[in-house]
Amino acid sequence: MKAFITLTTDFGERDGYVGQMKGRILGINPEASIVDITHDISPYSVTEAALVLKAVVRQFDFPSIHVAVVDPGVGGERRAIVIRFGSSYLIGPDNGIFSPLIDELGDCEARSIENSDFMSSRISRTFHGRDIFAPAAATLSLGHDFSGVGPPAPDLVKLNLREKIKKPGIIIGSIIHVDRFGNLVSNIEAFEIEGKRLRVECGHIIVEGLTGCYSDSLTPEPIALVNSFNLLEIALPGGNASEGLGLKVGEMVRATLKDF
Amino acid sequence: MKAFITLTTDFGERDGYVGQMKGRILGINPEASIVDITHDISPYSVTEAALVLKAVVRQFDFPSIHVAVVDPGVGGERRAIVIRFGSSYLIGPDNGIFSPLIDELGDCEARSIENSDFMSSRISRTFHGRDIFAPAAATLSLGHDFSGVGPPAPDLVKLNLREKIKKPGIIIGSIIHVDRFGNLVSNIEAFEIEGKRLRVECGHIIVEGLTGCYSDSLTPEPIALVNSFNLLEIALPGGNASEGLGLKVGEMVRATLKDF
Amino acid sequence: MKAFITLTTDFGERDGYVGQMKGRILGINPEASIVDITHDISPYSVTEAALVLKAVVRQFDFPSIHVAVVDPGVGGERRAIVIRFGSSYLIGPDNGIFSPLIDELGDCEARSIENSDFMSSRISRTFHGRDIFAPAAATLSLGHDFSGVGPPAPDLVKLNLREKIKKPGIIIGSIIHVDRFGNLVSNIEAFEIEGKRLRVECGHIIVEGLTGCYSDSLTPEPIALVNSFNLLEIALPGGNASEGLGLKVGEMVRATLKDF
Repeated sequence: MKAFITLTTDFGERDGYVGQMKGRILGINPEASIVDITHDISPYSVTEAALVLKAVVRQFDFPSIHVAVVDPGVGGERRAIVIRFGSSYLIGPDNGIFSPLIDELGDCEARSIENSDFMSSRISRTFHGRDIFAPAAATLSLGHDFSGVGPPAPDLVKLNLREKIKKPGIIIGSIIHVDRFGNLVSNIEAFEIEGKRLRVECGHIIVEGLTGCYSDSLTPEPIALVNSFNLLEIALPGGNASEGLGLKVGEMVRATLKDF
Repeated sequence: MKAFITLTTDFGERDGYVGQMKGRILGINPEASIVDITHDISPYSVTEAALVLKAVVRQFDFPSIHVAVVDPGVGGERRAIVIRFGSSYLIGPDNGIFSPLIDELGDCEARSIENSDFMSSRISRTFHGRDIFAPAAATLSLGHDFSGVGPPAPDLVKLNLREKIKKPGIIIGSIIHVDRFGNLVSNIEAFEIEGKRLRVECGHIIVEGLTGCYSDSLTPEPIALVNSFNLLEIALPGGNASEGLGLKVGEMVRATLKDF
Repeated sequence: MKAFITLTTDFGERDGYVGQMKGRILGINPEASIVDITHDISPYSVTEAALVLKAVVRQFDFPSIHVAVVDPGVGGERRAIVIRFGSSYLIGPDNGIFSPLIDELGDCEARSIENSDFMSSRISRTFHGRDIFAPAAATLSLGHDFSGVGPPAPDLVKLNLREKIKKPGIIIGSIIHVDRFGNLVSNIEAFEIEGKRLRVECGHIIVEGLTGCYSDSLTPEPIALVNSFNLLEIALPGGNASEGLGLKVGEMVRATLKDF
C-alpha cells in the first residue's frame, strides 16, 4: 500500500542504524516510500529535532507518517506514542519532540504504542527506532486502525523551550539553533515583530532594522531577517555568523520595537 | 506521474531544509522519485556543485529533472532558470552552477521561471529551493509545457573557473576540488594529456608518469592518474593526499608533456 | 521491474560518486528502489562496513540486493563478486567486506563478475562502484540469471578481524567500532556472556554487571550492555564514552564471567 514515511533521527548514517529501520519498514510495507528528512540532529538534541519537525512537517500537506527518533530515554519509562492529525501521523518517543509542532497543529489525538501487533516480535531495550517506531509506522501505513495502536495517551510531555520575556516594546529571547551556514536562529517569531521598527541586540552586536534577504546587504556586517522557519535570525551575508561573531545557542537576543 | 527528480544542494541535512523541499515536491507530484545526489556541497561553493553536476548528470541518460541549489544570491537580482536538454531539465539559480555541464551538453534551451503556476503561492526571500525550484521541478514533472515556465533566458551566467595556461608541451592548471579521500582533482582534462609521457608538478612534489589506478602503486609515494571525472588527479594510495602533502584547492599544477 | 537495491559505501555524498551510481542503476532499471544504508563508512574501512552490513542486511528479510563499495584495491587484482543467499544478493569487491555476514548466513553461492553484460560498456580503473557493481546490481534486479554473472568464485577473502582469546571464565576481545554517540562496541558477542555475572575491563575502567539500557543508569559512570548489534558495548549514559573515557578502536576489552 502506497504511503509516505519520513525519518528524522540523531543516528547519523554511518553506523547503519537508519538502514536497519529502513529494512524493517520495507519488510512490512514494500510499497512505502521512505523519505529521509535528516539523521544529523545533534546527538540527544530533542530541541533541535523539534524545530526541524515543526518546519518540515507542515510542508507535507498530504497524508504522511513522520517518524522521529531522538531518544535518550530509550528503554526506560517514557512512552512510545503515535499522534494523529488529519490523515497524517507522528510517531516517536513522548519526550516533547513533537510539542512545538502540536502547538501549531491544534487538533490532535495521541495514543500510546502498546499493542504488540505494531511492534517487532523481539524488542531490544536500546533501539526502539527499529523495534517499535519503524514497525508501528509501517503497520499504520498498511491502513491498520489507529485506535488499535494502544490506549489514549493524555498529558504529553511538553518541551521545555527557553522562555521569552516580553515587556512593552521589548522581547528578550535567545538563540535556539545554529544552522549549517552559521546563521543564528532565535525563538522570536515573525508575528511578534511584524510592522515595527526593529533593533536587535545579541552579544556584542547591534543590528538596526530588518533586511529582506541575504543578498540585499552589500557590506560584511551582520544583518537581521525573518528566515524560512518564520523566526528572527542573525546572519553574516556570505559568511558564518556563529563563527564570525563568536555567538552560539543559548545567547540572549533582545529585540526593541518601535512604531514606524 | 512517474518522474525522477534529483537534488544537489549545500544545505546539509541537519536543518531540515532538504526535507522541506521534498515535502513540496511530493505534495505536487506524489509519483515523483526523489534522488538525493548530495547536500554536502561546501556552503556557497558554486564551483564544487558545478563539478559534481557535470559528472553526475551525464550518468542520467534518461528523462530526468535535476534541481541544484547553491544560491548565495537568493532573493536578489539573479534569475531562477530551467534549462532543457533532450527530455531532461536542469533547474536552479542562474549563477553558473550549470555552465560546465552545459558546455558539454551542447544544444540547450533556457527559460526564466516567472510563471507563478510553477512556484509556491507564498515566496520567501531566503529559500527559493523550497518556494521556486522544488515546485518548478514537480510541476514540470507532471508534464506541464516547458514554454509555460517563463520567457527565454539568454546570456546565462558563465562560471569563472580558474583558467589554464597552455604552452607547447606544458599545461598549467590548478587543483579545483579535494574529494572525501583527500584526492587532489585538477582542471586538466584527460584528452589534454592522452598519449604523452607526463610529468606532474604540484607544490613541492613531482610525479613522473601516470598510474592506472590507486592499487597499482606499491609505495606510499604520490601518484598521478586520470580519475572518474576524466580529470588529472594527484593521490596518495591508501592515504589522504591533501593532508599528507599539505596541498589544497587553488594550488598550481604543472603538467609537462613529452612524446613517447 | 520492482526491486530493492541498497547502497553501503565510504564515498561520502559530497563528491557525487554515489549520485553517479544511482544514475547508472536507474538507467538500467527505472523501477529499482534505491535504499541508502550509509555512505559515511570511514575511508577504506572494510571492517566498519562489514559490521554495518552484518547488522543491516539481516533486517532485510525479503528479496533485496545489497551493494557495498569500500574498495581500496579497485582496479587491481581483487575480484568483483556477487553472492546469492535465498532470493537476495550481495555485490561488491572480494576483500572480506561480506565475510562476517556470510559466516552468519550460512548457505551462500558466490560468483565472480566477468560477463560484460553485467557491466558498463566503459570500465574505468578507479570507480568500479559505478562501472561494475551498480550495473551488476541493476541487471540482476531485472531478473537476469545469477549463473550468467560469471564463474563460481571459491575461496572468498576472509576479513582478518581481531581475534578473541578465550580462557575459562575470561574472554579477551577488543573495541572494533565507535558509533556516532561515542559508544564503544566490542567484538564480544551476546551469547558468549549470557547468563553469567560479568565484570568488564577496558583501559582504566572497570564496570561491574550488565545494564539493560542507557536510561537505566542514574549516574554518569560508564555502563556495559548488549547493544543492538548483539555485541558487548561500553557506554556513558547521556555522554560520549570514547571522548569521555579516552578509549577508541583497538583497545583491549576483558570480560570476566562468574556463575550467578
